[in-house]
Amino acid sequence: MKSTVARYLPILSWGRTYNRATLSNDLVAALIVTIMLIPQSLAYALLAGLPPEAGLYASIVPIMLYAVFGTSGALAVGPVAVVSLMTAAALSSIVEQGTMGYALAAMSLAGLSGVMLLAMGLFRLGFVANFLSHPVIAGFITASGIIIAASQLKHLLGINSEGHNLLELVMSIGAHLGEINWITAVIGVLATAFLFWVRSGLKPMLTRLGLPAGPTGVLVKTGPVAVVVVTTLAVWGLDLAEQGVGIVGEVPQSLPPFALPSLSPALLGQLLLPAFLISIIGFVESISVAQTLAAKKRQRIDPDQELIGLGAANIGASLTGGFPVTGGFSRSVVNFDAGAETPAAGAFTAIGLAIAALALTPLIYFLPKATLAATIIVAVLSLVDFSILKRSWTYSKADFMAVFATIALTLAFGVEAGVSVGVALSVLLHLYKSSRPHIAEVGQVPHTEHFRNILRHDVITDPSIVSLRVDESLYFANARYLEDKIHNRVADDPNIRHVILQCSAVNEIDLSALESLETINERLRDMDVQLHLSEVKGPVMDKLEREHFLSDMTGQVFLSHYQAWTSLKTGGAGALGQ
Amino acid sequence: MKSTVARYLPILSWGRTYNRATLSNDLVAALIVTIMLIPQSLAYALLAGLPPEAGLYASIVPIMLYAVFGTSGALAVGPVAVVSLMTAAALSSIVEQGTMGYALAAMSLAGLSGVMLLAMGLFRLGFVANFLSHPVIAGFITASGIIIAASQLKHLLGINSEGHNLLELVMSIGAHLGEINWITAVIGVLATAFLFWVRSGLKPMLTRLGLPAGPTGVLVKTGPVAVVVVTTLAVWGLDLAEQGVGIVGEVPQSLPPFALPSLSPALLGQLLLPAFLISIIGFVESISVAQTLAAKKRQRIDPDQELIGLGAANIGASLTGGFPVTGGFSRSVVNFDAGAETPAAGAFTAIGLAIAALALTPLIYFLPKATLAATIIVAVLSLVDFSILKRSWTYSKADFMAVFATIALTLAFGVEAGVSVGVALSVLLHLYKSSRPHIAEVGQVPHTEHFRNILRHDVITDPSIVSLRVDESLYFANARYLEDKIHNRVADDPNIRHVILQCSAVNEIDLSALESLETINERLRDMDVQLHLSEVKGPVMDKLEREHFLSDMTGQVFLSHYQAWTSLKTGGAGALGQ
Repeated sequence: MKSTVARYLPILSWGRTYNRATLSNDLVAALIVTIMLIPQSLAYALLAGLPPEAGLYASIVPIMLYAVFGTSGALAVGPVAVVSLMTAAALSSIVEQGTMGYALAAMSLAGLSGVMLLAMGLFRLGFVANFLSHPVIAGFITASGIIIAASQLKHLLGINSEGHNLLELVMSIGAHLGEINWITAVIGVLATAFLFWVRSGLKPMLTRLGLPAGPTGVLVKTGPVAVVVVTTLAVWGLDLAEQGVGIVGEVPQSLPPFALPSLSPALLGQLLLPAFLISIIGFVESISVAQTLAAKKRQRIDPDQELIGLGAANIGASLTGGFPVTGGFSRSVVNFDAGAETPAAGAFTAIGLAIAALALTPLIYFLPKATLAATIIVAVLSLVDFSILKRSWTYSKADFMAVFATIALTLAFGVEAGVSVGVALSVLLHLYKSSRPHIAEVGQVPHTEHFRNILRHDVITDPSIVSLRVDESLYFANARYLEDKIHNRVADDPNIRHVILQCSAVNEIDLSALESLETINERLRDMDVQLHLSEVKGPVMDKLEREHFLSDMTGQVFLSHYQAWTSLKTGGAGALGQ
Repeated sequence: MKSTVARYLPILSWGRTYNRATLSNDLVAALIVTIMLIPQSLAYALLAGLPPEAGLYASIVPIMLYAVFGTSGALAVGPVAVVSLMTAAALSSIVEQGTMGYALAAMSLAGLSGVMLLAMGLFRLGFVANFLSHPVIAGFITASGIIIAASQLKHLLGINSEGHNLLELVMSIGAHLGEINWITAVIGVLATAFLFWVRSGLKPMLTRLGLPAGPTGVLVKTGPVAVVVVTTLAVWGLDLAEQGVGIVGEVPQSLPPFALPSLSPALLGQLLLPAFLISIIGFVESISVAQTLAAKKRQRIDPDQELIGLGAANIGASLTGGFPVTGGFSRSVVNFDAGAETPAAGAFTAIGLAIAALALTPLIYFLPKATLAATIIVAVLSLVDFSILKRSWTYSKADFMAVFATIALTLAFGVEAGVSVGVALSVLLHLYKSSRPHIAEVGQVPHTEHFRNILRHDVITDPSIVSLRVDESLYFANARYLEDKIHNRVADDPNIRHVILQCSAVNEIDLSALESLETINERLRDMDVQLHLSEVKGPVMDKLEREHFLSDMTGQVFLSHYQAWTSLKTGGAGALGQ
């Protein structure tokens, strides 16, 4: 009982050993992350199509809940780029952006996603996320990064454009190019250029000056804060809002409001698929960050408990005016580099953000949206990486097809189509590959007990024996292939008296494959050929022994292929001698 | 060029060696099959919701076309029970039965299915059918048999009832029980009882009387013809049609009419999924019959060419007033038993049926529909076999779940839902199984070079070495599982210095799995643990060598696990000696 409670409430284990040293480390990390999170949260709310305060709200209660239920000491939960984009894509086809209904639907989406994550955690269904192959994720993130950057151009240029895939965005931006607000564009371009320089110029410079990597990393991450301060002051001092520069404006000074999301069945029905995709993508992003950081300290992450933690965080977001959240890469790395040791660092970050939401929002009244757009663009362009195309092309054409389809469909039709087709295609390609397993005809390597592919090696064969090594588990998708392969091999050659299947790489034989073996056995009997098995694995043999196949089989089961070969060869030699 | 033509026109090869002996064998078989096919064709047309002549039309041109393009000498193509049921299920939700539109839509369905089969044959996509696992097919056929039998009760009892799943049928029959026509019911029940007796009583009797198996089988199969003759005469002689006994009535005396199917895009769109399912189910039924019969004569069947043959047959059906057809089990067995040697037997059958369509249709005016229903019920109830439930339960719970779902959903919601969910479920269960591969920690069997599971055997281990044998190919669905497994094993035990993955059962490593190996390598490096591989297969090694993983790896690749063990154990012993 006690261990069950401890399993679902990791806080009970790390809380017990919490001390002053841990506290001070966590406090320092929290301060740094809070400063970094303020502009980031505002920016991702903008990306999700929500008012800026939603970004702060989505960072406060979710972080607290993750601190209670999560297992990673370094993971920082909150709005992230790809999930925010997916939120915008899911909602904007259903409700109009800028309305109250939109904000409520965002909360519903977070709630649905939270319930799904929680259920997956409780029923230990985290393996579902494994069907997102690495290449599909890489392709998806690259394509999403491009769409996100393109979607932010409207803020950077001060125009109205819309769209949820690259085609729509490019068309829409092209149509509105005449409306560019040049002051906005200058702020946006300068902010973007500065942020790129911070990443690519400042970091090497500081390193050359001898600053250690830790502080350098933290300093570089505060670049966005500097841009926020400078551009806000500029807009305020020069009265640029009067010139049409888009600003954040009035943000309520409030703690996250407690509010129920929309529970309309029609809306929830429409949000089911997007919520599922957001859950899976968010979980995959979060768990890989958490595990990478945990490995550095030889700590364990429990994926099922992580689902519960993320589920709780999203349910929290849905009840406090937020939108879907997950563990973000860049903020978690900052948290880790700044020395966070336990989930308590997250709780302190939440307190910092709550103070910001209460006290600091008047200060961002004049913050230009172009600055926020610039921080997003710089952040997501670092995710864009087409090298996966080249790599998968070299390594495996099937992986390449899945990546290519994911990138192309995400750009052309949006995130949901892209990731769905990517997953479906990688599953189909995998099934296709395993439906045509490698089946090698083998012969004896002279003077040894080893058997090798007759096409690759100089081996001894016997005209009355066909030895086949099956390099795959036998199951329904390849069972009939095996039937055809054996039938075709034997039908053409009347000398054959024995077929031996070497099963050293067969990890499973399902019922379809068993029935195919029975069929093969009967057909071979009709042709006067015996069927034998060799090197059947223990668990496979256990299963076969529950059935009558072994007794119906015309031949025998041999422990080693060499045994099968020697005992049948002798008999075969007799037959040949006729 | 010549061989390409020969490949697509098998008639060119068997036609060249055709002689008088073959001709006479084929003619005898054709005569027997023709007699048997007349009532069967009429009955299946009734089942598909079409006028009786459609059954004859669907047997003439399709058989001819299969004779040209097919590769099986014994396969008899025409309407079959399950496909006729699927035709009725697909059409009746779209167009009203008994209308001209219904007949045209049936032709469209045959045409669509024919084009799909042809395309699958030309693009060699026959493997798609492999995703129908044997248990799913067995469950589907059993459930379909029950639905078909239930759907024929209305003809047997002379009532009006409707429905495409067991629930609907039972409800509808119950509601109309008051309308029973008792004369019809007597004819129907007697006909059914007689046909059951022919199967279960007559056959053993003839065998006891010393009749050889061949003629006995043929005689038993002509039982339906006897019932047709007797009941038709009874209805005619006793004027029973006046008493409300449903009869076949006027059937046009005509060769199959040439007519275009409906090409309405809306209709074709609605028929896409049913046509696909009919194609796959029909192909699987046909190819398994063809291969079973071919094996008895040590002949080869080319599955891709069979797709072309069936595609041509269905396109033929769609242009001559027919409906979807495939190679049927019972008629093919009769054909084979009667001595058919080449597809020409089919062509002669087609001529026989054409003569019947032209000359004999007035004779079946008084044929009661109850008789046809009786022949269908007796034929399909022999397909009903619930033993697959017990068998799959014993052999594998995953297979059981797929069968159970297929049977339950087919009965409850109809054929399309049943077969779709059955296929989806078996694919998902397979993926689930392979996403949690068996990973055994192994140790050295004393005084040997063998390594076995430490949980099952008394083996030697070393505290600084973890040896893991992965019993599955590594791909995206199980890559992260391996990461977790290794991470959890190592994170808890600070003595570990080496992890060796024994890859003897790893037939493939896809890009996701490679990236997982890289991640594992990095994480282990962070924990000061080396990663090694042993017994990597040739093709897997070839692929790995295209990448930088092998040079990044902290450990080595060993040819045998024993090598790895001995060379690391020595080093490990030194480390332990500190």
